[in-house]
Amino acid sequence: MLYYCVGEMVVHMPKSDYISISVIKRLPRYYRYLGELSKSGVYRISSRELAGIMKLTASQIRQDLNCFGGFGQQGYGYNVNDLYNEIGRILGIDTELKTIMVGAGNLGQTIALHMDFENKGFDLIGIFDRAEKANGRSIRGVHVQDINTLDSFCKEQKPVIAILCIPNDAARELAPKLIELGIKGFWNFSHYDLGVDYENVAIENIHLGDSLMTLSYRTNDIIKSAK
Amino acid sequence: MLYYCVGEMVVHMPKSDYISISVIKRLPRYYRYLGELSKSGVYRISSRELAGIMKLTASQIRQDLNCFGGFGQQGYGYNVNDLYNEIGRILGIDTELKTIMVGAGNLGQTIALHMDFENKGFDLIGIFDRAEKANGRSIRGVHVQDINTLDSFCKEQKPVIAILCIPNDAARELAPKLIELGIKGFWNFSHYDLGVDYENVAIENIHLGDSLMTLSYRTNDIIKSAK
Repeated sequence: MLYYCVGEMVVHMPKSDYISISVIKRLPRYYRYLGELSKSGVYRISSRELAGIMKLTASQIRQDLNCFGGFGQQGYGYNVNDLYNEIGRILGIDTELKTIMVGAGNLGQTIALHMDFENKGFDLIGIFDRAEKANGRSIRGVHVQDINTLDSFCKEQKPVIAILCIPNDAARELAPKLIELGIKGFWNFSHYDLGVDYENVAIENIHLGDSLMTLSYRTNDIIKSAK
Repeated sequence: MLYYCVGEMVVHMPKSDYISISVIKRLPRYYRYLGELSKSGVYRISSRELAGIMKLTASQIRQDLNCFGGFGQQGYGYNVNDLYNEIGRILGIDTELKTIMVGAGNLGQTIALHMDFENKGFDLIGIFDRAEKANGRSIRGVHVQDINTLDSFCKEQKPVIAILCIPNDAARELAPKLIELGIKGFWNFSHYDLGVDYENVAIENIHLGDSLMTLSYRTNDIIKSAK
């Protein structure tokens, strides 16, 4: 349990066995906000204050956090730093999941350079591309290897996460092989809807093109309704 | 109306005034799948067949598309190419929304190079960064300008979309100014939750860090439950 009883009444709900994906998807946001609050020196916060900042309702916050056991207590609120650390632990940011990246073009290179993998639970141990593109390069201190060495590398190093920065067709072709090689989670930047064909594999699709088209629709809608 | 009656019964529902965000968010995916089908020479498709490919139910597909007026007809299905073009039109891919990008570091540069803006309804007309980073560079044929020229540029060119590839604090500071300058839609790559503070502005947040942490949680969950 994260929280020690110092008040009169401890709100401590039993941890749920099943946690809905929408709650899980909100956790990183809690983590971000609590990290900022902690950095600004806020020591404790009520669910109402946190709700105000995050534009949620206090009861939603209490409900969300109760899924993971008891945090906070009536009349006291949450200890910001403890809650921040606890959500980090729930998200697994200390787990160092062995991670490979496939595709080291512009996008792959930028993702590799840009992301704070170490502080989010990932250990980037291998980057792969076609031989002519690998060509002795290193990104973030990781040697870019010929894709033909992928099999032997995975059998030896046992990575569990693959970041796909390759085109649609290549992703579709490679996915089953990667799953066979032990990959349990994909961070997929290709257009291919990886989730459609596999079960029991964690998938986060970043469909930038879809997001851009949604933005187009909604912006046009706002412009039209303003006329 | 997209569809001409050639069969016995035309399913033509009135266009809804209010379309839910979840339907809108599915449209780009329909667009992608129909584009691929059209490229592979598929001329028509039933809602059942499309549902099978997209892992949706046929009734959900019919319901989604009925929000936008009548497509398809019983016993015939959808004309793939017509539906593709019509969804593209609904998404506004022919609208050439004037777009600026703020932040031309690694991420900004890659986004500018990687995205197929022209075919998604956007016209990238300006890129801005601090003077020392702008430094005479061009990306995708667009000159990178000193951020100090942003005001005059927006007043003259009237862009409506801003792509933010800048840090949290810079995004928070710049957003109200951009809205004042006429920006109606944001493609936001910063950690800042832009949607929280503004209304009547279209916002697509790409929170890569949140996605990565969700992936960490879910992958750890799968690994644990396999043990």
